[in-house]
Amino acid sequence: MNNAVNKRTFQPEDLIPGNRKPKKYKKNLLTSPGTLTYIGPDVELKTKIRKIVYNDQIFRDQPVKSLLDCSPETSGKKAVTWLDVDGIHETTLIAKIGKLYQLHPLLLEDVVNTEHKPKLEIYDSGHLFLTLKMLHVDSESPICISAEHVSFVLGTDYLLSFQEELSNDIFTPVLERLQASVGKTRRNGADYLLFALMDIVIDNYFIVLEKLGDSLDTVEDQVIRGTEELSLKELYSLKRELTMARRVIWPLRDMINQLIREDNPLINKDTIPYLRDLYDHAMQVLDTIDSYRELVASLADVHLSTISNRMNSVMKTLTIFSAVFMPLTFIVGVYGMNFDNMPELRMHYGYYYVWGLMIAVTIGLIFYFKSKKWM
Amino acid sequence: MNNAVNKRTFQPEDLIPGNRKPKKYKKNLLTSPGTLTYIGPDVELKTKIRKIVYNDQIFRDQPVKSLLDCSPETSGKKAVTWLDVDGIHETTLIAKIGKLYQLHPLLLEDVVNTEHKPKLEIYDSGHLFLTLKMLHVDSESPICISAEHVSFVLGTDYLLSFQEELSNDIFTPVLERLQASVGKTRRNGADYLLFALMDIVIDNYFIVLEKLGDSLDTVEDQVIRGTEELSLKELYSLKRELTMARRVIWPLRDMINQLIREDNPLINKDTIPYLRDLYDHAMQVLDTIDSYRELVASLADVHLSTISNRMNSVMKTLTIFSAVFMPLTFIVGVYGMNFDNMPELRMHYGYYYVWGLMIAVTIGLIFYFKSKKWM
Amino acid sequence: MNNAVNKRTFQPEDLIPGNRKPKKYKKNLLTSPGTLTYIGPDVELKTKIRKIVYNDQIFRDQPVKSLLDCSPETSGKKAVTWLDVDGIHETTLIAKIGKLYQLHPLLLEDVVNTEHKPKLEIYDSGHLFLTLKMLHVDSESPICISAEHVSFVLGTDYLLSFQEELSNDIFTPVLERLQASVGKTRRNGADYLLFALMDIVIDNYFIVLEKLGDSLDTVEDQVIRGTEELSLKELYSLKRELTMARRVIWPLRDMINQLIREDNPLINKDTIPYLRDLYDHAMQVLDTIDSYRELVASLADVHLSTISNRMNSVMKTLTIFSAVFMPLTFIVGVYGMNFDNMPELRMHYGYYYVWGLMIAVTIGLIFYFKSKKWM
Amino acid sequence: MNNAVNKRTFQPEDLIPGNRKPKKYKKNLLTSPGTLTYIGPDVELKTKIRKIVYNDQIFRDQPVKSLLDCSPETSGKKAVTWLDVDGIHETTLIAKIGKLYQLHPLLLEDVVNTEHKPKLEIYDSGHLFLTLKMLHVDSESPICISAEHVSFVLGTDYLLSFQEELSNDIFTPVLERLQASVGKTRRNGADYLLFALMDIVIDNYFIVLEKLGDSLDTVEDQVIRGTEELSLKELYSLKRELTMARRVIWPLRDMINQLIREDNPLINKDTIPYLRDLYDHAMQVLDTIDSYRELVASLADVHLSTISNRMNSVMKTLTIFSAVFMPLTFIVGVYGMNFDNMPELRMHYGYYYVWGLMIAVTIGLIFYFKSKKWM
Amino acid sequence: MNNAVNKRTFQPEDLIPGNRKPKKYKKNLLTSPGTLTYIGPDVELKTKIRKIVYNDQIFRDQPVKSLLDCSPETSGKKAVTWLDVDGIHETTLIAKIGKLYQLHPLLLEDVVNTEHKPKLEIYDSGHLFLTLKMLHVDSESPICISAEHVSFVLGTDYLLSFQEELSNDIFTPVLERLQASVGKTRRNGADYLLFALMDIVIDNYFIVLEKLGDSLDTVEDQVIRGTEELSLKELYSLKRELTMARRVIWPLRDMINQLIREDNPLINKDTIPYLRDLYDHAMQVLDTIDSYRELVASLADVHLSTISNRMNSVMKTLTIFSAVFMPLTFIVGVYGMNFDNMPELRMHYGYYYVWGLMIAVTIGLIFYFKSKKWM
Repeated sequence: MNNAVNKRTFQPEDLIPGNRKPKKYKKNLLTSPGTLTYIGPDVELKTKIRKIVYNDQIFRDQPVKSLLDCSPETSGKKAVTWLDVDGIHETTLIAKIGKLYQLHPLLLEDVVNTEHKPKLEIYDSGHLFLTLKMLHVDSESPICISAEHVSFVLGTDYLLSFQEELSNDIFTPVLERLQASVGKTRRNGADYLLFALMDIVIDNYFIVLEKLGDSLDTVEDQVIRGTEELSLKELYSLKRELTMARRVIWPLRDMINQLIREDNPLINKDTIPYLRDLYDHAMQVLDTIDSYRELVASLADVHLSTISNRMNSVMKTLTIFSAVFMPLTFIVGVYGMNFDNMPELRMHYGYYYVWGLMIAVTIGLIFYFKSKKWM
Repeated sequence: MNNAVNKRTFQPEDLIPGNRKPKKYKKNLLTSPGTLTYIGPDVELKTKIRKIVYNDQIFRDQPVKSLLDCSPETSGKKAVTWLDVDGIHETTLIAKIGKLYQLHPLLLEDVVNTEHKPKLEIYDSGHLFLTLKMLHVDSESPICISAEHVSFVLGTDYLLSFQEELSNDIFTPVLERLQASVGKTRRNGADYLLFALMDIVIDNYFIVLEKLGDSLDTVEDQVIRGTEELSLKELYSLKRELTMARRVIWPLRDMINQLIREDNPLINKDTIPYLRDLYDHAMQVLDTIDSYRELVASLADVHLSTISNRMNSVMKTLTIFSAVFMPLTFIVGVYGMNFDNMPELRMHYGYYYVWGLMIAVTIGLIFYFKSKKWM
Repeated sequence: MNNAVNKRTFQPEDLIPGNRKPKKYKKNLLTSPGTLTYIGPDVELKTKIRKIVYNDQIFRDQPVKSLLDCSPETSGKKAVTWLDVDGIHETTLIAKIGKLYQLHPLLLEDVVNTEHKPKLEIYDSGHLFLTLKMLHVDSESPICISAEHVSFVLGTDYLLSFQEELSNDIFTPVLERLQASVGKTRRNGADYLLFALMDIVIDNYFIVLEKLGDSLDTVEDQVIRGTEELSLKELYSLKRELTMARRVIWPLRDMINQLIREDNPLINKDTIPYLRDLYDHAMQVLDTIDSYRELVASLADVHLSTISNRMNSVMKTLTIFSAVFMPLTFIVGVYGMNFDNMPELRMHYGYYYVWGLMIAVTIGLIFYFKSKKWM
Repeated sequence: MNNAVNKRTFQPEDLIPGNRKPKKYKKNLLTSPGTLTYIGPDVELKTKIRKIVYNDQIFRDQPVKSLLDCSPETSGKKAVTWLDVDGIHETTLIAKIGKLYQLHPLLLEDVVNTEHKPKLEIYDSGHLFLTLKMLHVDSESPICISAEHVSFVLGTDYLLSFQEELSNDIFTPVLERLQASVGKTRRNGADYLLFALMDIVIDNYFIVLEKLGDSLDTVEDQVIRGTEELSLKELYSLKRELTMARRVIWPLRDMINQLIREDNPLINKDTIPYLRDLYDHAMQVLDTIDSYRELVASLADVHLSTISNRMNSVMKTLTIFSAVFMPLTFIVGVYGMNFDNMPELRMHYGYYYVWGLMIAVTIGLIFYFKSKKWM
Repeated sequence: MNNAVNKRTFQPEDLIPGNRKPKKYKKNLLTSPGTLTYIGPDVELKTKIRKIVYNDQIFRDQPVKSLLDCSPETSGKKAVTWLDVDGIHETTLIAKIGKLYQLHPLLLEDVVNTEHKPKLEIYDSGHLFLTLKMLHVDSESPICISAEHVSFVLGTDYLLSFQEELSNDIFTPVLERLQASVGKTRRNGADYLLFALMDIVIDNYFIVLEKLGDSLDTVEDQVIRGTEELSLKELYSLKRELTMARRVIWPLRDMINQLIREDNPLINKDTIPYLRDLYDHAMQVLDTIDSYRELVASLADVHLSTISNRMNSVMKTLTIFSAVFMPLTFIVGVYGMNFDNMPELRMHYGYYYVWGLMIAVTIGLIFYFKSKKWM
């Protein structure tokens, strides 16, 4: 699958050296800041660009062929231009688009730097830059999540969106909604479009959470039943994915809050309630992640004390066996001695007396261990 | 029991995959935001709506039959209208009520989203939205708490209340107080009614806490006595319920504080002291939860070191048995050898000398272990 | 002792279900807020009320017989009235006193709610309400602390004090100081009296701390010497008392700070330095509690690794015994076999050779274990 | 050494009950606030007072004989008066000095209260009170630090310094600098003198830290080499000293910051950079303490897992011995049986065959344990 | 390598006492504050100074021979002077340079104090002081990082940079960029140069992180495979280096933020976006360090439970061996007894019956342990 190559996943194979580190930064050292360097995995597919122009009356969706098609719409009627760039490895192309929209080179650096943390930056030149992470579940057991770098540039009447991944465009539902009917999305401006796309990303977090929850349930089940010892490694892989997800989602809280609070002319007042709703959803995601993290920690504790308990029961078994058979072996050893003068050996029922003694010792010890609740 | 089906409880069965996750969010993905989606368990009962109109003179309580009955009271005399909606699964009905009172679609989304965290939102359009969780104890051993989603919309002279559950209306005591006498509740406005209902919810937390405290006492008793190993799992189930309760109650702190601080025209000055009292009670609940959580953590530590201690005592028993019987078995082994020339075997009292030696060895070892305090 | 019944202590018996929970809240559920409900232990003694009127010239101390005596002093000369109410279980009495001084019903609710956390509330009606906890040491081994609910209402020229306990009035020293001489206390107003009473409460914390410190020293001694295994439970009972004390003292920090910061007409400027001193003392108490808590945590760690170390030494003993005697037992077993053709058995010094071999094996193993530092 | 008696050190002997508690507070209970009570160890030496008057031209250093000599300098020329009081157990003397400089009784209470935490207080009456702790290393193995209570009162042209200890005056270097040359210290005011003295105290912390670092290195070395089991107790004594030092140094951060931030007329603008430097040094001390604390925590972990590892290796040895010798002992036991009809016993090479069998079993088991990496 | 001597690294050898402590502070005690004291390792090489003067037209790079060459450029044309001082052990030289640029003695003290934490200070006299740490990887297994003390003084048209190390000048890339072309660096002022140099330092952190990441991967691999017990010490050495790196990088966050926020005339508005970018990179470094730290903590947990698991399996093996062979040894012991009257011994097939019994017992026990999942 070409797609899988393309993702920065945290799979068990990552445990083998050489995979999960901030990469290729050495290149960057001698270049002056603001030079675009794509540091994601090598990709061979071509960047796909789509330009959608719409308002409550018109709707035009055209695949972009030359760079000229990318330029901002300057026709008379007020319409929203959405330029959806799918693929960020062709840095020269990104640089050219950036020039068309007069974007700062440092902004473009953040668009192609797939290691960049989510952030929101408001530029004086009248646009707003926002980058976040789309999460995908790559495999379910052990769970493994990949993060896709997604960036937005919001202007007064345009929105640029950049996606790292080449296949399965996650913004399709919004596109369909735009196409389908003259709904809220069509009637509102570029800021509402930004909201709608962010909403898709956050809704997607719930799907990922559901998968994580399923994995957690499986592991929890194993831990409670105390079955295999495999569960420990799965527990820590779960913990790792949760930590990664939290790290990536946490900054959203502040970003959306900043969008709501700051009196930005790019954000329409009517969009604010929707952003507030988005904020609530982000909080709900974080809350669930935190409760999962706590659960993982509790499970690790339960697991450790299950091991201790089991060790305890192993030790008890050993002790009971030893304590019962050692005296018996000693007794039979006594009558295996070859002394010339051992009166018991000559007694007619000596052998049976010894059996009687041994049975008595055994019963006594068993009562003793029962009284100590070891059996 | 139809009722039990209806609750999102955290029972041991939840440990089996598939139960305790944010559900059915996938549906939501293609719908535009603001579309109402009920995500709780499937319910077949009909929504019950009750409309109560009262002031210090009048009191009318009427079950609502058609949607028209739900509309806000516009009669001349100043009275409070309380619309109590019992059941939130019929989203179309909720949407219609929302329209009557001009509520924002996103507000209604939060009314039916049973996974939503408690929050307070003040709308410019002159009403205030508040959602919180009612807690119920479903079973006592192992303790298991269910959370019911409750929402309020407060306007100048009306209060809408939405409850997730269909049976046992928790607001009955307030209704009876309204009915019974011309007390504080009747004389004051809709804001006091909101307070009275929230007060019921928080008073209810104390009952839940009492049950949790009982469970904790039982577990504590088991841990201190060091009896069964079952206690560990009960300990972690307790921890889980406490964490859940805390998560659900914690936001109340800020919500009530915001009601007190903000100079909202909907909140009468005379109601402020009562809200402050409510705040104190919420803090008391949280404080008790925190002390229970600390106790649970301490008990887990005590439990673990009890296990260690017990292992220690098992090991000592084993060591004493081995250390006493191994030398004895060796001695009797020596005289079980078949060498032709073993002078001791020919001695007349050889056998008795060996017994003497063995008794001496045993006494010596017992003294040694006594001196090491292993016995 | 009738007194002991009267206290909410945290004794080992509390570990048995049914004792240490927020109680009787169920009663409250149907009553409207502001209804006084005493939730402490049942008490049969009568409430004792004392009314002291003083300024730098006069001093009158009279036991109150009828409710009329409780009314605020309205005589011409400026004097401070101190009404000391000893016992808060007679809620109707409290309600009547409240009416005399025009206190809000919610304030009175906090006076009788013995579970209420320490808090400070400033009422617009010109008085200030403050509630805190007096700590008493009930038994010293295991340490067990009880908390007494104490409340103050400060007006311009009066101070009401409410104590939960019926016996040993803790305010006696202040009373004696008032009676004895025309000192600072007599010359200053009701605010200084409040300070003096709070000072008594906080000084008392030091006595409690000293007792806790003694207990801690005993336990520390046990842990370091590694003697009995009883220490663990005492350690956790200490931790519990420290946690309880901290919870009860912590809010004082903010309360006193608020008294200092806020420009309240009830608090004279000359009293501020004394309050600042009080603040320092409260901080010192909290600081000591925190260092004790850290010490308890460290001791628990030392205790656990002492157990591990001891287990280690038990295991070594077992291993040395087994490793020495197993080969020896095997050797004697070999020559206990009954084969017809075993040349060694026929050798004249065979028996002695075997002894030589066994001694060599033993010495070899002992050297081996010495080299491994197991002996 | 009389001096040692005089210090509140935290030595292993402190583990024995009765030493390290806030003391003699009981006395205080009946005295009204502001009464001076010295609570440090009993001291018999006399308080030494020194009065130094200087400016860039003059320098007078005189031992104070009568209380009159202590009075503030009121001569015409502008000079700084430094009154260095060495010994704070003579509370009446301190009270008299306090009167001369019109100090608040509560301030004096803090001067003699050797348990008081470091703090800064700015009095309206135009002086500034500051108390901190000088640290001394009393013994190096196990490390043990004592804290000396030092207080300063800064006026416009005077500085009072109070030291708990009677011997080795730590301020000598500053005195020598004053005496030696007309340097910065002589040219500047009382505020610079305060800085110079505080600088001495903080520089001294570095010496203490160096000693702590040495101790830590020794313990670390022991832990890493895994030698003796003594290291654990030294580790916890180190932790304790570090915690104590941190508690005592931490408040300095805020105190110096407050001196820098607040626009106090007592602090000259030129002194601010020096205070900022002091702040940096205090931060550096705290930073080092924190890194030491983290190291101690890590070492405790390493220590615990070293114990676990060692236990593991003990268990493996035991298991290998048992697993090898038990089958062998069983085999020789078989041929020690006395059945009439045991064909093997009659075989001519039976004995040798059995040896062959036993060697094969042993080799097999050794290979098995090698494959499991237990050897 | 002369260079290695020169670095304060944290190598395993540091575990031996005497290396890693704040040093030579004793010297400082009697000197007055502001006296320069170099406390790094002794260095014999001479300080290298380089003076570069440039603007968009000119570029002069001259090695400095006499102190006069160091003086600020006062020629008519507006140009940036960069004085790069390589070596800070010659304190008198540093003091002289400081005088030329009118720097405060305390600032110079921080330049030569190699133990000083990163900080930013803005002087009223119109320059800005900034010190940070360059990190170098000295050896890769076990990882060991050294910190180089780097300071900057930024004036309106000059930048002084001080480096602790004598060899491999880390600022070469910036110098080459300046030399090579008339790029951004040449066109902008001294503030941009400061940014470019800080950018080099932070880019370098990524290289160090990559090495740490490699080490972490190796250790993780060892832990997961559960191979050698060496991994524990490497884990803790990793933790230590991460803690050190964090401590050194953390203050950068605030420093850069302060540069951005404060309206400093030294910082050009066009440089702000670059500083913001720098801030993002610093955050990314800290974020990676934190995730590495969490990973190290998780690995320590995995390691500990791997040990527990292994111990468990060792114990099981021991128990199974003991439980199987003890009954067998007992049985053969029974028939090794020498009683005259033991009917079984006389039975013709007695020996075979006993073998049958022993096989039955063994199979029974194996089934029992299989049912307990111990095999």
